[in-house]
Amino acid sequence: MRWAVILAGGSGSRFWPLSTPTMPKQLLPLTGTLSTAEQALVRLEGLVPRERVLVVTGPAIAPRLEQVLGLPHENILVEPRAASTGPALVWATFEARQRDPEAEVLSLHADWSIREDAAFRHTAEQALTTAVRYRRLVTVGIVPSRPDTGFGYIVPGTSLDDVARTVARFAEKPSAATALDLMASGAWWNSGLFAWTAEVLLDEVARNTPEIAPILPRLDAGDIPGFFSGVTPVSIDVGVLERSRAVAVVPGRFTWDDVGTWDALARIRRRDSRGNVTQGPVHLIDCDDCVVWSSGDPIVLADLKDKVVVHANGRMLVIPRARAAELKAILDQLPPEIRDLP
Amino acid sequence: MRWAVILAGGSGSRFWPLSTPTMPKQLLPLTGTLSTAEQALVRLEGLVPRERVLVVTGPAIAPRLEQVLGLPHENILVEPRAASTGPALVWATFEARQRDPEAEVLSLHADWSIREDAAFRHTAEQALTTAVRYRRLVTVGIVPSRPDTGFGYIVPGTSLDDVARTVARFAEKPSAATALDLMASGAWWNSGLFAWTAEVLLDEVARNTPEIAPILPRLDAGDIPGFFSGVTPVSIDVGVLERSRAVAVVPGRFTWDDVGTWDALARIRRRDSRGNVTQGPVHLIDCDDCVVWSSGDPIVLADLKDKVVVHANGRMLVIPRARAAELKAILDQLPPEIRDLP
Repeated sequence: MRWAVILAGGSGSRFWPLSTPTMPKQLLPLTGTLSTAEQALVRLEGLVPRERVLVVTGPAIAPRLEQVLGLPHENILVEPRAASTGPALVWATFEARQRDPEAEVLSLHADWSIREDAAFRHTAEQALTTAVRYRRLVTVGIVPSRPDTGFGYIVPGTSLDDVARTVARFAEKPSAATALDLMASGAWWNSGLFAWTAEVLLDEVARNTPEIAPILPRLDAGDIPGFFSGVTPVSIDVGVLERSRAVAVVPGRFTWDDVGTWDALARIRRRDSRGNVTQGPVHLIDCDDCVVWSSGDPIVLADLKDKVVVHANGRMLVIPRARAAELKAILDQLPPEIRDLP
Repeated sequence: MRWAVILAGGSGSRFWPLSTPTMPKQLLPLTGTLSTAEQALVRLEGLVPRERVLVVTGPAIAPRLEQVLGLPHENILVEPRAASTGPALVWATFEARQRDPEAEVLSLHADWSIREDAAFRHTAEQALTTAVRYRRLVTVGIVPSRPDTGFGYIVPGTSLDDVARTVARFAEKPSAATALDLMASGAWWNSGLFAWTAEVLLDEVARNTPEIAPILPRLDAGDIPGFFSGVTPVSIDVGVLERSRAVAVVPGRFTWDDVGTWDALARIRRRDSRGNVTQGPVHLIDCDDCVVWSSGDPIVLADLKDKVVVHANGRMLVIPRARAAELKAILDQLPPEIRDLP
């Protein structure tokens, strides 16, 4: 049967000061009236029933996430420590197989913005079908709308059928010049939307992933803390997909974006006639292309361009949009009494 | 005897959202630990005793001003309406003469920044002496440190003695080019620090100021509301000094500035090594020449230049320093629920 795994970890620093360790971005209504985690669940309706949706997250977020999503308690998988996407997806896939030996797994992230839910479900169906038919790890490629240097790329290879292709190679986050070349040559974004059968994934991990493979017996023994303390953190891309010969890619015909930074909201949310994105009581005079968020206190801006301005949780942030991706580095420079949120 | 009149009116919009109608800039510690109104009073010590210091202000501020300054209740002169500096100084000078027919009056503003109090007192002595000796209205000229277009200028004329000179002419707020010419030709800023005897001022008003002269009998009758409803608002400069032939100027050898806008704080307060002025819990990363004020909530800024950033009274303001002088116009564009402070 089909299962879904939603990755919903994250430390909550990318949308400081709005996001907090207990209220991270995936629980915030950053892109609309629902949080992206809730949107992810809604998007799966008709594709995977709720009782087969697993969520992997951390202990700080887990209680609120369970409450917001309304999933069965046993479907919230709480990682004892964050160890990147590899161990998280291996554990969740193992869990699915424990409950269903024939489990087919779709993996997605809780912080995506996707506009066309029907197209998403259609692509997910194709990815799952491909995973079963060819016994491969299947990734969904998104036709790039810009030469983004923050995403990985997939260079598709030969056709397996009308939909699926082999993977010629993966390209990790490229330079600006390489991103342009990749985009021009027909490479796709590696979205992180994956499909596999539990059996194939666990076989591939056992074969190719020394960071995780020796520790798999702990999962068999039900020793989750032991598994997480024993693995070496590694992403599913680097640790499994890029090393496997059993991969395939299907194209995703939907608008996909990673709600990764304040700057991303300028791509994702509705802009005013001068390119500004605002939330809350915000008044702009002669401003262009700003992202402005207030959780309560009115904000007045004049004559600014390309700035991120936020007031939330008793903190105020003003930075150029171009620095939004470096917010973690900025926070690292702050004294704890300013950085840590009440 | 010597009297001082401190002009402490003002609507409280220049330092929005920190200043409010009941807590305007002259009551805020904008330049140091004391408010500029308190500093003005301290600066007069040894020159004019407190019982002969009059303060002219509006009804919204009067109670707090009386409390903060600790002056006798009868020394707080509450204008029924704001009518510029002419009627205010005429009324206060009239009041001084009522209490002391030989009154000599020094007039100053509650929102000045002056660094050298001893030099201020020395100049004030010279101005008062000149006013009595030559029976003239005496203004103090400040040697300009920049070609400011926000101040009026005085072109000094012939010498009356070692200190005082006649006034060749007054130049109202000039263009940038004219300001440069004035500065180069030895003109001084018209500070607004004046000295006169009550007798001479009231004579000059009766002779030259049709906006006020016909209404003077209301003051004799003790009808202050009638006086203010009858006068035409006019500044002391335009209404009296610029029309009088009995004027003189003495140079002020002290650092003087008008704490008129957020931008002015960058001139007046201590700057960090990159030219920033901050107050409250503010953390700057790669910022230059910013003015940042927080009344409580921490503010984090990165990679900004020449900006004013303020959080106070539940409002947040971000504007270029170059727009600070236009803050009133910006506020006029705001909906009342954002502009009006709690």
